[in-house]
Amino acid sequence: MNTYGKLFKITLYGESHQDAIGVVIDGVLPGLKIDWQKIEADLLLRRPGAVGTTPRVEKDELIVTSGIFNEYTTGSPIHVMIKNENVISKDYSHLVNQPRPGHADYVAFKKYQGFNDYRGGGRFSGRLTTPIVVAGSIAKQMLPFEFSHQLIQVGSLKDMDQLDDYLREIANQGDSVGGIIEVRVKNVFVGLGEPMFEKLDSKIGEMMFSIPAVKGVEIGTGFDGVELKGSEFNDVYVDELGHTLTNHSGGVSGGISNGNDIVVKVFVKPTSSIKKAQTSFNLKSNESTEFEVKGRHDVAIVRRAGIILENALAIVLADLYLASKVYL
Amino acid sequence: MNTYGKLFKITLYGESHQDAIGVVIDGVLPGLKIDWQKIEADLLLRRPGAVGTTPRVEKDELIVTSGIFNEYTTGSPIHVMIKNENVISKDYSHLVNQPRPGHADYVAFKKYQGFNDYRGGGRFSGRLTTPIVVAGSIAKQMLPFEFSHQLIQVGSLKDMDQLDDYLREIANQGDSVGGIIEVRVKNVFVGLGEPMFEKLDSKIGEMMFSIPAVKGVEIGTGFDGVELKGSEFNDVYVDELGHTLTNHSGGVSGGISNGNDIVVKVFVKPTSSIKKAQTSFNLKSNESTEFEVKGRHDVAIVRRAGIILENALAIVLADLYLASKVYL
Amino acid sequence: MNTYGKLFKITLYGESHQDAIGVVIDGVLPGLKIDWQKIEADLLLRRPGAVGTTPRVEKDELIVTSGIFNEYTTGSPIHVMIKNENVISKDYSHLVNQPRPGHADYVAFKKYQGFNDYRGGGRFSGRLTTPIVVAGSIAKQMLPFEFSHQLIQVGSLKDMDQLDDYLREIANQGDSVGGIIEVRVKNVFVGLGEPMFEKLDSKIGEMMFSIPAVKGVEIGTGFDGVELKGSEFNDVYVDELGHTLTNHSGGVSGGISNGNDIVVKVFVKPTSSIKKAQTSFNLKSNESTEFEVKGRHDVAIVRRAGIILENALAIVLADLYLASKVYL
Amino acid sequence: MNTYGKLFKITLYGESHQDAIGVVIDGVLPGLKIDWQKIEADLLLRRPGAVGTTPRVEKDELIVTSGIFNEYTTGSPIHVMIKNENVISKDYSHLVNQPRPGHADYVAFKKYQGFNDYRGGGRFSGRLTTPIVVAGSIAKQMLPFEFSHQLIQVGSLKDMDQLDDYLREIANQGDSVGGIIEVRVKNVFVGLGEPMFEKLDSKIGEMMFSIPAVKGVEIGTGFDGVELKGSEFNDVYVDELGHTLTNHSGGVSGGISNGNDIVVKVFVKPTSSIKKAQTSFNLKSNESTEFEVKGRHDVAIVRRAGIILENALAIVLADLYLASKVYL
Repeated sequence: MNTYGKLFKITLYGESHQDAIGVVIDGVLPGLKIDWQKIEADLLLRRPGAVGTTPRVEKDELIVTSGIFNEYTTGSPIHVMIKNENVISKDYSHLVNQPRPGHADYVAFKKYQGFNDYRGGGRFSGRLTTPIVVAGSIAKQMLPFEFSHQLIQVGSLKDMDQLDDYLREIANQGDSVGGIIEVRVKNVFVGLGEPMFEKLDSKIGEMMFSIPAVKGVEIGTGFDGVELKGSEFNDVYVDELGHTLTNHSGGVSGGISNGNDIVVKVFVKPTSSIKKAQTSFNLKSNESTEFEVKGRHDVAIVRRAGIILENALAIVLADLYLASKVYL
Repeated sequence: MNTYGKLFKITLYGESHQDAIGVVIDGVLPGLKIDWQKIEADLLLRRPGAVGTTPRVEKDELIVTSGIFNEYTTGSPIHVMIKNENVISKDYSHLVNQPRPGHADYVAFKKYQGFNDYRGGGRFSGRLTTPIVVAGSIAKQMLPFEFSHQLIQVGSLKDMDQLDDYLREIANQGDSVGGIIEVRVKNVFVGLGEPMFEKLDSKIGEMMFSIPAVKGVEIGTGFDGVELKGSEFNDVYVDELGHTLTNHSGGVSGGISNGNDIVVKVFVKPTSSIKKAQTSFNLKSNESTEFEVKGRHDVAIVRRAGIILENALAIVLADLYLASKVYL
Repeated sequence: MNTYGKLFKITLYGESHQDAIGVVIDGVLPGLKIDWQKIEADLLLRRPGAVGTTPRVEKDELIVTSGIFNEYTTGSPIHVMIKNENVISKDYSHLVNQPRPGHADYVAFKKYQGFNDYRGGGRFSGRLTTPIVVAGSIAKQMLPFEFSHQLIQVGSLKDMDQLDDYLREIANQGDSVGGIIEVRVKNVFVGLGEPMFEKLDSKIGEMMFSIPAVKGVEIGTGFDGVELKGSEFNDVYVDELGHTLTNHSGGVSGGISNGNDIVVKVFVKPTSSIKKAQTSFNLKSNESTEFEVKGRHDVAIVRRAGIILENALAIVLADLYLASKVYL
Repeated sequence: MNTYGKLFKITLYGESHQDAIGVVIDGVLPGLKIDWQKIEADLLLRRPGAVGTTPRVEKDELIVTSGIFNEYTTGSPIHVMIKNENVISKDYSHLVNQPRPGHADYVAFKKYQGFNDYRGGGRFSGRLTTPIVVAGSIAKQMLPFEFSHQLIQVGSLKDMDQLDDYLREIANQGDSVGGIIEVRVKNVFVGLGEPMFEKLDSKIGEMMFSIPAVKGVEIGTGFDGVELKGSEFNDVYVDELGHTLTNHSGGVSGGISNGNDIVVKVFVKPTSSIKKAQTSFNLKSNESTEFEVKGRHDVAIVRRAGIILENALAIVLADLYLASKVYL
């Protein structure tokens, strides 16, 4: 449920408004010197601040209680905890009767029979992606691959040079937008991924859809490839290392890395919380009502999501990388 | 590797040109009377025959060796085997040096160090989807939901009434096309899916990308939703059962089924094997060469893929359905 | 449920009186030339025939449908099926109301709500250990270790030279006996086993108790060690390879193989089916009744169990062996 | 590796001499009001203090950061952390060259290539059983069963009334002893446990051998049953609920709970650390040496182990209990 992976395994805990969130990272190879500044740098990318992101401050001091000895990983699980500070104790109890559209309020109440901690989204809060960034950042340090990500589109905007202006406009409308992010991995060798149910793309799809707000995942060219014919879509080999002229496959053939860049494109839906008045259904009065989600919101959570997706992908590759050692 | 699921668990085996393929289906509730005609009907949808599909005949007689007693499931694993008959013993050894573009030949050789059975695609053959259809068909009989699928687009064609003509044209070009399939599940209750790593959409993504040729997965509106603002994308609740005015979410909120139709859209890439001459790299001579993939091919494998994706989705829901019983 | 292992994974299916039993073996390294005669030799050890074992003949022809190409393993799952021939279709329906003492009849009916196939013990039959012998025999061929087993005690008999006479006597009484088997693995390197829940002894315990009739498991000296003090029980290191003067630890320290022989002792309970009249409870008439289990029985199933336990242990070690490669 | 369970899942972290140890407990049903005093009472049983246990004080304040809201479980993972206070920073570096007999020092160094935190036993310290007691105590509160444990034998002593005197004598000798503990579960219904590899006894064996110092596990009568014949060992049913006259089976038939008390007997080896001088091998000088393990030790760790085993068993039953709901 809250544990991912077979050999590189992470277990998450925490809710938005309780004392702490955290992650237990199991399977990190012993003898790795962790560069904590790299992790801080990744966390900074996730943190709000830019235009279109919430001005709320998250400090996110990492408390590492185990798994590191004399600066090196020991082979035991690494536990990283982050306290939930600056949590404002406002009243969230109206959410019980009036679930916010686009949020998990309604399903959480039903599934957990009213016992879930609904404050700030509880277990479903985007805040829970912080430990994923930490775990993925450690995964990247263990891997011989090169990771990057970029925004491809935000709302209807494709020229990222105009992003600040565009998001100010959306903010003025009291609305929000989603976007498309591309994550890329270079220097991948042939052979990551197992047949059938542990395929590289299968594990990527599983992980990407684990990240809140993700509603679409493509490997390589993806849906746009529907317009191409086989003679155009097939990537032509150009050398004995498996490199191809084009990369419609996104670096994955038959579920196994083929030596070309792994390219994953992810659709992040528009932020659910908006300033604008919205209609919902009041479960107590049994009628539709207008309401506004109070507070200061991200206009484009997608702006902060790139590093989450990149590091989530690193977690997948760390697991398959360790598995690949079995056969070498 | 070849096993999927936690409570409803399937294990696949087989290669295209060996004696048999099959599946062990574990976790089927005891006391279910299996309707084998429904399974045959599903298999018929996967079988070739229509315009744009290979004229190769697959008989697919199901050999059921265990798990059924007096017509009812016993609670023990159901084993279904299908013999590989009508396999033509032609020479595939040229593939060792000359991997086909778009196929898994190259990665399979590298990963399995030359020991893989490369005949007819071996473990990577589309034939291996037959046991998935069988397992999913049984899953559907155990579930109180209603499944369907439809072709949304094939190549550049969006009007499915013209499909036969369109595919004849592509066939004449010696080429192939891909397509987009929508799978839909009705009558789903609230609560399927677990937090974080066993989210409903996460498990759907994992399974869909397990199916050969799938290169994109969307839940609900998906990538097209990038043009929508939050106020448009948010689905408005209209009753106390969680039903919404629109269904951009595709029936999944916070990774949990929300009571609306589950809608999954899947991109199936153009069939890799085409009649047209293609360029590849010869690993022996170390130079690029022109070659043709012999035999009779599917022009649009997507035409046969709908039932595979529908039943694969049923396998996912069967696993989460059993998990949901824990909390009820 | 019927699947074991993480990297070396086996999935069992079948019931005693249905068409076939079998196993899917996943994770065998590619390029291994399987010696089928060794497997046959192991099966011969499990087969009845000696004094104290049932005179029933099991032919056990192995049908291998996949995973082997040109005599070598391909890296794909190996499927081995064994038909249930010579099954006598007698009437077992009285078991529904009158569960046999020591058997699983009663719990099976309750758990599977009356839908289980009760003929010949169904899923709980000792026959299901045949595929375990096959899978373990393949595991042994993949491992660089040396396996053996021996009977330590049968009933009250400790001198195995008198075994035939002893068992004839028990047979004459219409009774049965259990026994203690020691399984030993030589040439094991240091490092098999993972911390806490995938400890070597933990995985051994799990597997041994999976074998029907096993009711006790010891690593090394075991329960007899209760009489020893720490100064006697502690094994003294004698060289830099971790070899010790004594081996009370049975080759396992802190859950990890320590380079000494792995020694496992297993108690197999007396065969439940006996010729003698026994008392049971009739669930229909709601009263105690005398009855006899018809047919020809093993007087000492323990005589055939050694190879099952040895090969079951090999399956455990194969899984941990592959895992150990991750760290090397 | 450090995660156990399928539906009731626990993940452990921590080493003896780092900042904290802890556990993430996933799968606790929502709406359970946790009685923290019961947990404290269980921890008290594990804590030293009695004759024959170390006078070292462990305070063990529980820091609960998530999974509880308004005193009830939320359905999200419960994280409990315990700081490692009162840790004495003495020099442990001699252990690198001179592994203690009976401890995991040697295998840990080999497996983790010298990067393990060896202070106080590191990951292999008995201290890591504290979070198991906590998790098991929560499991017991979720279960409708009744748990207990008792010492059966300590060293050669079988009359527990003389325990204090006996242990004082062993302490005077500078030595240690092991023991046998019986754990019992009452009011268990029929049906816990799954076929083959998730059998109740199989999961019990796996878990019991996970606890440090455990070297033997029996279900029911166990090894002593080797002297019994089938007619004596078979438990005779006396009513329609499956109750039996004797309980040699220990409440488990065919791997499934049969409605009688679950009885597990566990052998805990003599404490490895003793005051007496011992011989070990110095890996630097390459010769055998005499040495003493400094500090104050448990003479009979078995005295504190009962609650650990009882609660470990509760974790197993919690997992199978949730699984059993799938079929009801």
